[in-house]
Amino acid sequence: MISRAQLAGIAGGMGPLATIELMRLVMEETPATCDQEHIPLLVYSNPQIPDRTKAILGEGPSPVKALVESAQLLEKAGATFLAFPCNTAHYFLPEVEVRVSVPIIDMIEETAIEVEKAGVAKIGILATDGTIKTGIYQRALKRRGIEAEIPDEKRQLAVMEAIYGVKAGYDLKDAERILEPVLIYMSERVDAVIAGCTELPMLLRGPAHGLVVIDTLRVLARRIVERALRPEDTE
Amino acid sequence: MISRAQLAGIAGGMGPLATIELMRLVMEETPATCDQEHIPLLVYSNPQIPDRTKAILGEGPSPVKALVESAQLLEKAGATFLAFPCNTAHYFLPEVEVRVSVPIIDMIEETAIEVEKAGVAKIGILATDGTIKTGIYQRALKRRGIEAEIPDEKRQLAVMEAIYGVKAGYDLKDAERILEPVLIYMSERVDAVIAGCTELPMLLRGPAHGLVVIDTLRVLARRIVERALRPEDTE
Repeated sequence: MISRAQLAGIAGGMGPLATIELMRLVMEETPATCDQEHIPLLVYSNPQIPDRTKAILGEGPSPVKALVESAQLLEKAGATFLAFPCNTAHYFLPEVEVRVSVPIIDMIEETAIEVEKAGVAKIGILATDGTIKTGIYQRALKRRGIEAEIPDEKRQLAVMEAIYGVKAGYDLKDAERILEPVLIYMSERVDAVIAGCTELPMLLRGPAHGLVVIDTLRVLARRIVERALRPEDTE
Repeated sequence: MISRAQLAGIAGGMGPLATIELMRLVMEETPATCDQEHIPLLVYSNPQIPDRTKAILGEGPSPVKALVESAQLLEKAGATFLAFPCNTAHYFLPEVEVRVSVPIIDMIEETAIEVEKAGVAKIGILATDGTIKTGIYQRALKRRGIEAEIPDEKRQLAVMEAIYGVKAGYDLKDAERILEPVLIYMSERVDAVIAGCTELPMLLRGPAHGLVVIDTLRVLARRIVERALRPEDTE
């Protein structure tokens, strides 16, 4: 039963393809047999939000103003909770949360909870330089006693190339090829990896050298569906 | 160059998959090499809008109130023009247009223009019972001297089954199989068909028995990109 009291607001565009993929996963995670059983989504796909990794590395302007604008636009238009399908953007979300009154789903925390549930003691992180550098995943995992494995410098370069390849509209097959040595590296060290950038799950659908892949976008999609379908009286 | 004065508002959810597909086509039609070069989209995917075909056939409530709500929400949130990725909904758009001050792209008219440009004298229409019954495509084509071929009763049933199969989340391969006899029927009568329901283009990507397919969603995507990238001073 769709709760009319709930409207998911998706602050997207980081990148635009990840936003589309999140919407597809929300559909996939919704039990529906006709249009009317799917959940409503209010989506602001704003690809002009300044690059989050560049800002973290001190190479570009802060995205905070644009992130707050997206959040406030969605709240004003009626969204009752927000989701940001960009792992790197999560580093800035504390500065956004204080500027809106609706709750924001924390994709990093929710992913760490999934890793804990899966009983994994050590997990690889595939993410942007920005996400890795801020340590947001490492801290969320450490709080749960989970060890994090990050790629060495050379493999991290390949991760970035694959991610920005997806953003640039590369053939996904080419981006997959770029990512392959990283998967081999990880498969020698861990049993599971977090696809910790919303551009990555699209590249990890096939066999990933035996690695279990925790798809952060799917985790986010599930939380959106759960919240949208939650009975009103538990609010 | 992205015009900051333009923000596309997409009144979607009819069905939700067609809305996602339109967003993907907008990306595909945009010349971009990084996130920031893509165009912003404000999307209200509201799958709870009453079924348009049922309303036209007198079997369900009117979608007009919900369509107006979507349009007004998007306008209020800052959209400077609107697109409705649902062919059948276009029958009701005159009642929506008078309730907003921003322009609405007419997907039916734009498609008829594409057919005229392609130099086709007679074209098949694959659409819902609602779209066929209202004659919106037949009229737009007739004004341009183009003849329309619609499926017989039995094949029209198959078209509806395929469309509502996509909406219900069928495997696209199954929906394609249901549509096949219709394509054979059309290929014996015309050289080209309009995929006149936003659920259909997804089923007509492969070889369509030699038929040229006019993809209404792609036509709409192109108009959205053109308008978003139009220099401000021509407004």
